[in-house]
Amino acid sequence: MPQENAPFSRAEYDRRIAKTRAAMQTAGLDLLFVTDPSNQAWLTGYDGWSFYVHQGVLLGMEGDPVWWGRHMDSIGAGRTCWMETDHIHGYADHFVQSTQRHPMQDLARHIKALGFDTATIGVELDNYYYSAKAHAVLVSSLPNAQLVDATALVNWQRLIKSESEIGFIRKAARISEKVMTTALDKAEPGVRKNDLVAEIFHAGITGVDDIWGDYPAIVPLTPSGLDATAAHLTWDGTPMRSGEATFFELSGCYRRYHAPLCRTIFLGTPPQEMLDAEQAQLEGIAAGLEAARAGNRTCDIANAFINVLKKHGIHREGRCGYPIGLSYPPDWGERSASIRSEDQTELQPGMVFHFMPALWMDTWGLETTETILINDSGPAETLCDVDRKLFVKA
Amino acid sequence: MPQENAPFSRAEYDRRIAKTRAAMQTAGLDLLFVTDPSNQAWLTGYDGWSFYVHQGVLLGMEGDPVWWGRHMDSIGAGRTCWMETDHIHGYADHFVQSTQRHPMQDLARHIKALGFDTATIGVELDNYYYSAKAHAVLVSSLPNAQLVDATALVNWQRLIKSESEIGFIRKAARISEKVMTTALDKAEPGVRKNDLVAEIFHAGITGVDDIWGDYPAIVPLTPSGLDATAAHLTWDGTPMRSGEATFFELSGCYRRYHAPLCRTIFLGTPPQEMLDAEQAQLEGIAAGLEAARAGNRTCDIANAFINVLKKHGIHREGRCGYPIGLSYPPDWGERSASIRSEDQTELQPGMVFHFMPALWMDTWGLETTETILINDSGPAETLCDVDRKLFVKA
Repeated sequence: MPQENAPFSRAEYDRRIAKTRAAMQTAGLDLLFVTDPSNQAWLTGYDGWSFYVHQGVLLGMEGDPVWWGRHMDSIGAGRTCWMETDHIHGYADHFVQSTQRHPMQDLARHIKALGFDTATIGVELDNYYYSAKAHAVLVSSLPNAQLVDATALVNWQRLIKSESEIGFIRKAARISEKVMTTALDKAEPGVRKNDLVAEIFHAGITGVDDIWGDYPAIVPLTPSGLDATAAHLTWDGTPMRSGEATFFELSGCYRRYHAPLCRTIFLGTPPQEMLDAEQAQLEGIAAGLEAARAGNRTCDIANAFINVLKKHGIHREGRCGYPIGLSYPPDWGERSASIRSEDQTELQPGMVFHFMPALWMDTWGLETTETILINDSGPAETLCDVDRKLFVKA
Repeated sequence: MPQENAPFSRAEYDRRIAKTRAAMQTAGLDLLFVTDPSNQAWLTGYDGWSFYVHQGVLLGMEGDPVWWGRHMDSIGAGRTCWMETDHIHGYADHFVQSTQRHPMQDLARHIKALGFDTATIGVELDNYYYSAKAHAVLVSSLPNAQLVDATALVNWQRLIKSESEIGFIRKAARISEKVMTTALDKAEPGVRKNDLVAEIFHAGITGVDDIWGDYPAIVPLTPSGLDATAAHLTWDGTPMRSGEATFFELSGCYRRYHAPLCRTIFLGTPPQEMLDAEQAQLEGIAAGLEAARAGNRTCDIANAFINVLKKHGIHREGRCGYPIGLSYPPDWGERSASIRSEDQTELQPGMVFHFMPALWMDTWGLETTETILINDSGPAETLCDVDRKLFVKA
């Protein structure tokens, strides 16, 4: 009954669980406790803005996963998860932000009741929403269990997308095109930044035809001028000005799937050094896309881009991208592989990355990026169709 | 120089730091490491969507606080913090989501360089963004220091708001009135929920006159019918239907300050039990507001509300509210006191709460709430001016 609303077929969830269990077996785990909201949703369909309280999914080597969280959210779990409600457990409200009790005491009780009190249990040690305190309470409440680090174990299983997931990302990409076009169209001197962001939100949430817009895991980033030399500043009520570049880091979202896209607009006449950097960046992106093919590695994309920039006299280091797909705030990155020089992940068909070769210089920022799909053969496919260039409005 | 953009005066930040240091002294701390983005912003002004990587603020008993985070975000810290840039430190990008290095190794180096390698250091053990792994790495990298739990130490200092903070919350309340009125006006059978949410976002971000809208820490919650029996489900593309109640849990946001507000609308003719519950809820809210006065305690508000409901034959338990103010996703609650029967916090002038006496029943939900300010004398002031009732559109 709950399955009618689930975004994916039962076969798709079965596939995900089988993949995860294979990784659990390799890691020697009897049980996995998943707190990452994206991992929870990927395994069970759970979808709600409740990740500000302790909650998670238990997955053993047999049977359906168990969703566990605050009682009031167990109702929402019953309406969004594909499991039967006897696999959904809520804890009492007096555990919430209490100085006397901790929700992990309740979780430990469930784990014991399920027969895992002496088990090897994987936990996502380095994840938002799995606090140091949560871990300490769980460890002390399960003295006979062995808790081991399973950070990103599920994230790595998400790296290669199914056809249905790619379908969702393609829908998100339609919305990304719309939000980017809206931002580029409406940007002009005198427009308050918050009014521009309001248009971006409106375009993204209305969506495209029957592709309704979900909330992206990161709010629109739209900094101008010196603020664009920083990576993650949000907007204020200041009007846009002539003589400044503004970058737009945006994503459409369809049922929690993303397709991030960045473009930069200059109001007025851009300085020559920025036009030069644009050429270098575009040439670097083309080289990166050529390298983004099955059999190559993530580092090949980064190195292809960085080498072109070097040829143009621009020093660029750091990450140039990350896998994307299903996500909840605060990040739309999947946190497994990285597109960077030290990363050796082999590219395989069905992987989707935000290729993010942005440049943050001393007095301006230039973000031009693509969401890319690794194909069976040939270079990567860019999923959004928006002109790749520095936009200029004189 | 960076101070020109800071939301508050230097005197206001000095007051906050003095308060925090007094609490540190009571707790026996030499140094405090603050990861909660709201606590970081409250102490330093730092404002950026970068809390998806490890970052934080170090505060000792002397001198200015130190902001520490990813190098690319240290540029944004330089543009938003009031401290001089020699108090802002960035770590290299190869620490980001690396399987070989952890950013806390870099933080430990700074802590040692500042002379705190044998200090008693408070950390926010039970906070989003302070992961179990972060704590483990910090502990092992500072073998001679003593790390102790300082969860919510800063949150508690935020409980009584300054006049400037109350001014910000009043501005947020103007936006809350606008978003709620927009939602109530536009709701009607056939309207897709995502289109309604797009209007809500647009109203909230454009703001009111020169009160520009910031992003609220929780997205608009607008569930209908059976989805409204759950607390935290987000929207989809389904059209609104006659014969269903929809609750709106919304907040305007001005420079990260919130004023949450909930109202419920019924399209068609509400069932008698819902009208009865409305009367009980309104009477209970009035009783709660009467009890919400300086000298009383948080539990008095909860008990006043719960006792009225009991008189009407409705059993309600759990939290009925929490303090609000400055916040970042995933929560606009401050996570210190709670309005609930077991909470003994004394109410003092300048405290601001989201009084949240919502009812989630088997087949519908009824949310009618207020952001309230504890006054010097008399009952609490409600900061938003929207009719308090169940809205009905026949």
